Amino acid sequence: MCLTFSKAAIAWAAMNSSNTVRLGVLGCGTVGTSFVQLITEQADEIERRTGMRLEIAAVSVRDASKERAGVDASLLTTDSDGIVTHPDIDVIIETMGGVDHTKALMLSAFGSGKPVVTANKELLALHGPELFAAADTAGVDLALEASVAAGLPFIRALRESLVGEDVSRAMGIVNGTTNYILSQMTEHGASYDNALAEAQRLGFAEADPTADVGGFDAGSKAAIIATLAFGEAVRAGDVHIEGIETITADDISNATRMGYVIKLLAVVEQSDSGAIAARVHPTMLPSSHPLASVRDSFNAVFVEGAGIDQIMFYGRGAGGHPTAAMMVGDAIDVALNKRAGVHRSVGELGSAAIVPIDDSVSAFYVSIDALDQPGVLADIANAFGSEGVSIRSMEQENSTDDVARLVFITHDAIESDFRKTLAAVSDLDAVKNVGQVLRVVCD
Amino acid sequence: MCLTFSKAAIAWAAMNSSNTVRLGVLGCGTVGTSFVQLITEQADEIERRTGMRLEIAAVSVRDASKERAGVDASLLTTDSDGIVTHPDIDVIIETMGGVDHTKALMLSAFGSGKPVVTANKELLALHGPELFAAADTAGVDLALEASVAAGLPFIRALRESLVGEDVSRAMGIVNGTTNYILSQMTEHGASYDNALAEAQRLGFAEADPTADVGGFDAGSKAAIIATLAFGEAVRAGDVHIEGIETITADDISNATRMGYVIKLLAVVEQSDSGAIAARVHPTMLPSSHPLASVRDSFNAVFVEGAGIDQIMFYGRGAGGHPTAAMMVGDAIDVALNKRAGVHRSVGELGSAAIVPIDDSVSAFYVSIDALDQPGVLADIANAFGSEGVSIRSMEQENSTDDVARLVFITHDAIESDFRKTLAAVSDLDAVKNVGQVLRVVCD
Repeated sequence: MCLTFSKAAIAWAAMNSSNTVRLGVLGCGTVGTSFVQLITEQADEIERRTGMRLEIAAVSVRDASKERAGVDASLLTTDSDGIVTHPDIDVIIETMGGVDHTKALMLSAFGSGKPVVTANKELLALHGPELFAAADTAGVDLALEASVAAGLPFIRALRESLVGEDVSRAMGIVNGTTNYILSQMTEHGASYDNALAEAQRLGFAEADPTADVGGFDAGSKAAIIATLAFGEAVRAGDVHIEGIETITADDISNATRMGYVIKLLAVVEQSDSGAIAARVHPTMLPSSHPLASVRDSFNAVFVEGAGIDQIMFYGRGAGGHPTAAMMVGDAIDVALNKRAGVHRSVGELGSAAIVPIDDSVSAFYVSIDALDQPGVLADIANAFGSEGVSIRSMEQENSTDDVARLVFITHDAIESDFRKTLAAVSDLDAVKNVGQVLRVVCD
Repeated sequence: MCLTFSKAAIAWAAMNSSNTVRLGVLGCGTVGTSFVQLITEQADEIERRTGMRLEIAAVSVRDASKERAGVDASLLTTDSDGIVTHPDIDVIIETMGGVDHTKALMLSAFGSGKPVVTANKELLALHGPELFAAADTAGVDLALEASVAAGLPFIRALRESLVGEDVSRAMGIVNGTTNYILSQMTEHGASYDNALAEAQRLGFAEADPTADVGGFDAGSKAAIIATLAFGEAVRAGDVHIEGIETITADDISNATRMGYVIKLLAVVEQSDSGAIAARVHPTMLPSSHPLASVRDSFNAVFVEGAGIDQIMFYGRGAGGHPTAAMMVGDAIDVALNKRAGVHRSVGELGSAAIVPIDDSVSAFYVSIDALDQPGVLADIANAFGSEGVSIRSMEQENSTDDVARLVFITHDAIESDFRKTLAAVSDLDAVKNVGQVLRVVCD
């Protein structure tokens, strides 16, 4: 019914006084709908505080005949290409997701001199450096607060407040699904399968949960965090990814007993040489660590640097309203910039070396089942020592009559040295099984 | 030795290429020194990421003959008035503290078209609305990230990311000294006096600790948070203030037993009518609350709103490096804005009504010593009920043979109703003592 470019938008444009900024929204799912609602509700307050009136000019959808609660049907159009090029639209709000077509729309928007506000982590993790450069060339903003840990205003902090900071590491709980599952396992002793089923029942996990539980969603976010924290081009493919599928109730209870919690972390680090390590993996964190108390589907990003020491941002990682709230903040920002004829650049991104996983450094937890005999512990300790892997702590659990479960935590070690250690330990006659391996953050 | 305006600054200016921004620093204490060091160390990286070179043009001190580690002596001058008006200085960094003279310098800087970056909470809490208006009139920035919870980039989030958000409440642990003292009491069972003495020994508390332990420092910060969170003019005098001096080891252990921690919170709330309540007081928080795990001298600010749900910012509240790091972020921001010929306004601040403390609403904790006799609890419960104060929970502790300690937590109640309840309870013959009263945050 509304196949050509929205006449509604043109009508809006005609009514505009000069302090009005017209927003073209791509997509009208949960986030797009919440965005339109928030702008409608907050327009007066925004005008009072910024002197600028934000108005929705058009909303692109696949099916313009379907009703959307809280969105005026006359704003709907199926012509997303028309929105990004329309001369009466000032700012593009991208909530449609997807990669190739969305990228083309974004480049077209830049070409029409329109800044873009996006929550699209996949697109940014794959093509972020290219998109930042295109926005710069066009002299417009690409704002992405909602793309990582959607409800936390930390991207702006990384880009602006901390741009002069020598960030050494950022660690994030950036996937609400896995944090919900691990919280259920920790607090209620649930098995992985039961916690996943519960998350699916509540709508926190997809029917095919691979993107979340496999760590891929967090991997995209790790690439974006690394790019902005270090000013270097880091892409999804640069991130080493391990998911939470192998975490058992036993692992959780071991961790609890030792004073740790298990969280799926996105970890990005820059060494003094400038090389960048970016990883996603289940991680043991001391229960006193600020990230340890981030429960359920909440997200948090913990940043360390020479000047700031430690900073953490905590909030809703997803959801229509929190995501849309951050996009409203971005929309105001890019609209103010556009009116002033300026834009915020991320600068020229560097191309720092990516540390291969074999060379990366971490402390490790490993559980080993071995015969409960004199000399066995010495043999195992020797295997660690001969690869230069130093043991921080060891605990023995009584498992069965003649097999003891030994739980080790190492000091920081090079990944390949640790893997060689495990191979050597496996070869010992007295060792029956090398069980779960987890990385550990000790401070 | 250096009484006139720094020749060094003029020399710097002469060397400047067009991408250089010259900073005039007022004050060279811990923060000023750290700021100069950070700029010196990070200048190359900042230039790479922003295209702009930041240089220290001059630093004002009281005694220019005193050496300052890491600060080139030729930059020092005693002429702060000269710095704020010098045509070759672009941005003013105010780290000197103080109110009247500093305010005059700031207004003079605005008059010379210079944006100001400040960490001066006293000045902003007393004269913030006037200073914001003066900066606006001059068309320059007044940036204040480091004025509240210095090492947390949350002011920018309030001013920018959340400017379109309907914030209902912000609660902050914004004083490191009191948080250190309360953490020591909670974790080590220390008495208030011993914890204070330890804080003084470690340099976390002043010889005269009144400004911190009396809640006055947090009160200044509450006024600034309320102003920016709600876009309303709120001043230090609008904030109801109670300190932590009366908190005992008993109070702490009662709270722990009941699953709470005690924190000194700055609480600012805006009701649906638009009226603002701003208070600083010791507060019982459930131990599962994100603010409950903020330990030692760390700070955090927890913000609630319709869109964002809950957000928390966590980090170092003070210290030369964290404070200076945030001021570097601000300096980059205002320098970019100045080059672009734009500035960030807080908009026209409203003048919302301030809720008197008698009319404010909170849940309360109170401990009451009463004779251990039949009917006493009913009499006390009646006293609550007749003022419309609803009891959420009650616990009885066995204190002595014939006197029982009763600990009540109420549902939300109007302050004056609760005070009337306490007066009525005091008048009961069986009641021997009405002890500690604390406000409670239940969710």
